[in-house]
Amino acid sequence: HVCGSLSSLLSLVLLSRAEEGLEFPNFDGKDRVLDINERNYKKALRRYDLLCLFYHEPVPASKGLQKRFQMTELVLELTAQVLENKDIGFGMVDAQRDAKVAQKLGLEEVGSLYVFKDDRIIEFDGELSSDTLVEFLLDVLEDPVEIINNAMELRAFERMEEDIRLIGYFKGEDSCWYFQAFQEASERFQPYIKFFATFDKSVAKHLSLKMNEVNFYEPFMEEPAILPGRPLTEMDIVEFVHQHRRATLRKLRAENMFEVWEDDMDGIHIVAFAEEEDPDGYEFLEILKDVARDNTNNPYLSIVWIDPDDFPLLTTYWEKTFKVDLFRPQIGVVNVTDADSVWLDMSNDEDLPTAEDLEDWIEDVLSGRVNTEDDDEFADDPENDHYILEENTD
Amino acid sequence: HVCGSLSSLLSLVLLSRAEEGLEFPNFDGKDRVLDINERNYKKALRRYDLLCLFYHEPVPASKGLQKRFQMTELVLELTAQVLENKDIGFGMVDAQRDAKVAQKLGLEEVGSLYVFKDDRIIEFDGELSSDTLVEFLLDVLEDPVEIINNAMELRAFERMEEDIRLIGYFKGEDSCWYFQAFQEASERFQPYIKFFATFDKSVAKHLSLKMNEVNFYEPFMEEPAILPGRPLTEMDIVEFVHQHRRATLRKLRAENMFEVWEDDMDGIHIVAFAEEEDPDGYEFLEILKDVARDNTNNPYLSIVWIDPDDFPLLTTYWEKTFKVDLFRPQIGVVNVTDADSVWLDMSNDEDLPTAEDLEDWIEDVLSGRVNTEDDDEFADDPENDHYILEENTD
Repeated sequence: HVCGSLSSLLSLVLLSRAEEGLEFPNFDGKDRVLDINERNYKKALRRYDLLCLFYHEPVPASKGLQKRFQMTELVLELTAQVLENKDIGFGMVDAQRDAKVAQKLGLEEVGSLYVFKDDRIIEFDGELSSDTLVEFLLDVLEDPVEIINNAMELRAFERMEEDIRLIGYFKGEDSCWYFQAFQEASERFQPYIKFFATFDKSVAKHLSLKMNEVNFYEPFMEEPAILPGRPLTEMDIVEFVHQHRRATLRKLRAENMFEVWEDDMDGIHIVAFAEEEDPDGYEFLEILKDVARDNTNNPYLSIVWIDPDDFPLLTTYWEKTFKVDLFRPQIGVVNVTDADSVWLDMSNDEDLPTAEDLEDWIEDVLSGRVNTEDDDEFADDPENDHYILEENTD
Repeated sequence: HVCGSLSSLLSLVLLSRAEEGLEFPNFDGKDRVLDINERNYKKALRRYDLLCLFYHEPVPASKGLQKRFQMTELVLELTAQVLENKDIGFGMVDAQRDAKVAQKLGLEEVGSLYVFKDDRIIEFDGELSSDTLVEFLLDVLEDPVEIINNAMELRAFERMEEDIRLIGYFKGEDSCWYFQAFQEASERFQPYIKFFATFDKSVAKHLSLKMNEVNFYEPFMEEPAILPGRPLTEMDIVEFVHQHRRATLRKLRAENMFEVWEDDMDGIHIVAFAEEEDPDGYEFLEILKDVARDNTNNPYLSIVWIDPDDFPLLTTYWEKTFKVDLFRPQIGVVNVTDADSVWLDMSNDEDLPTAEDLEDWIEDVLSGRVNTEDDDEFADDPENDHYILEENTD
């Protein structure tokens, strides 16, 4: 097996220390990832609580690409080892050799990882590292609906402004048709969209929730939307979430970064870099939130917020590709087919742009006046002299 | 060179996609990490803004340990590649072969990484992964004192309750003796302890800071301490920070996790696991904060808070080692020499313990009545029947 010879290479390093309690795992060389085929896929599906399948291109002929492939296997092997006691199966499905199995299982995107839980398929289209994958799978193992019991837990709920959240008020967990519909809807979005429920009158009152009502919170918005329709069926909820899933301001996360990036708007993304832990970055983010709140009903606007702290290995790559300084907040338009980009010049000012300045700029982006292709023309337009654009490519 | 043959193995995997803009780096196989010795160390020190040296045990004879060593080199090589345009040098210092150089450079702990910036040495004793190291080095490159200019930045400052922070109010950046002393002190703690300054009267007023006064914020405390002494010299500030560095409640972070773990209290740590993103975990953390606030003057109490979300690869290792369920909040005593542990039983209750319950338990830990050695005796003590202990080892 290809992994045998590479054993322990993926390991994080811990030199001998006197203290115990913080031992990072080393890959122990044992094969845990199955080679899935027509003969064993049904058994694998039955056997585990979760089955996690990597749907990959045929193993390449070139040495360099083979090593990359082995690396993927190692990521899966280490993940399988770390989660050994959690009843999760792992396997590889070859897009060419196992085409039939892939079709039967409903695997679609080569390079994605699919998790089978009960009768559902969950696609993972994030950073393929053991950290991210372990965290993702642990989230999938949890209950899809989290119960909010008291005022303190409600505070925790209210702090999660970065996430899409739904919360419903129900009579109780058992024998409640409304709650069951809510729960079944939640399973379709786990772990990407968070579902909460409360059975507590005072929590419901605080949220202005009537019995069997469900609120939808868009990230960074202050007021929730109330889901229309009564009684709410599973499909009502699913439909509503699908329609409102693309938020006006969405944070890029390792667990679904490629999915978000693929969900571009006519080939471009408006990208904002802001380090939340940094006073400047925090201030810029607050301005962005204001802009998002003012424009939450514009279906053509979705700003991708990237906190460079979450992606240390990509920070310098972005600085090079986009020719921007990520020690400072930045906002720009990125063409996702060639990574060509245009950035709002904020370097000359002591102060960050106001929400109004940003809205003007965004309007110009959406109307095409600011774009990554014909920047020279734009620079000559006297109407737009209230800000200067930095041109980074050509 | 050992790394040549392993090129691109460390790479994070990205399969061919139509979109551009999120390319994780693959190690390109180029050697960037220097083999430091008597002939080249001075030149290396002069040449770079930062010099980052890994002080390691002699390369081991066994194949398995050699692979681990090569892995460390790969972590450094990938870090060097990612930070290529940042003027940072990287090198390895062999504790045996380069003992003289190590002594001249002041390297002390084998297995640590030392960063040279101007005339200072900064020790990195954290998780040796490229992510953590890149983030750490980018932090070291920033200015050690961050300026708070306005009310919005002040809000960012006030949100950082997890960090040890100092903030001073000064006349201005230049030709101000007080500010210079503050800045020089800050350099000694960068990037572990955050230093802020303001030159703005209204910001200072909001913080009740007089001119040339410095406040020290212990993590999770509501009120800062005012640094005594006037005028405050660099050494006054350094001394004060050294004395107050070990917080009553401190969060474990990848960047200095081994340093914190080594800083035990008589061979034990009180460890609390709580996932801040989880309503239960959030509630428990709020109780812990109350306990910490009530006991901030007790020099014998320091609780290590671990958010399992920050350490996905260690979560199941901790569950196995400590025999606890980390989907729920936990608090226990860990013996750092053998990882033996005792945990407060919170499984039978619907409700989490109150701050008073926790304080009683902590008192029993500090007095030795709860300990990892003689738990059976304790279980028989009728005085302590207000809670039950789970015994995990014996």
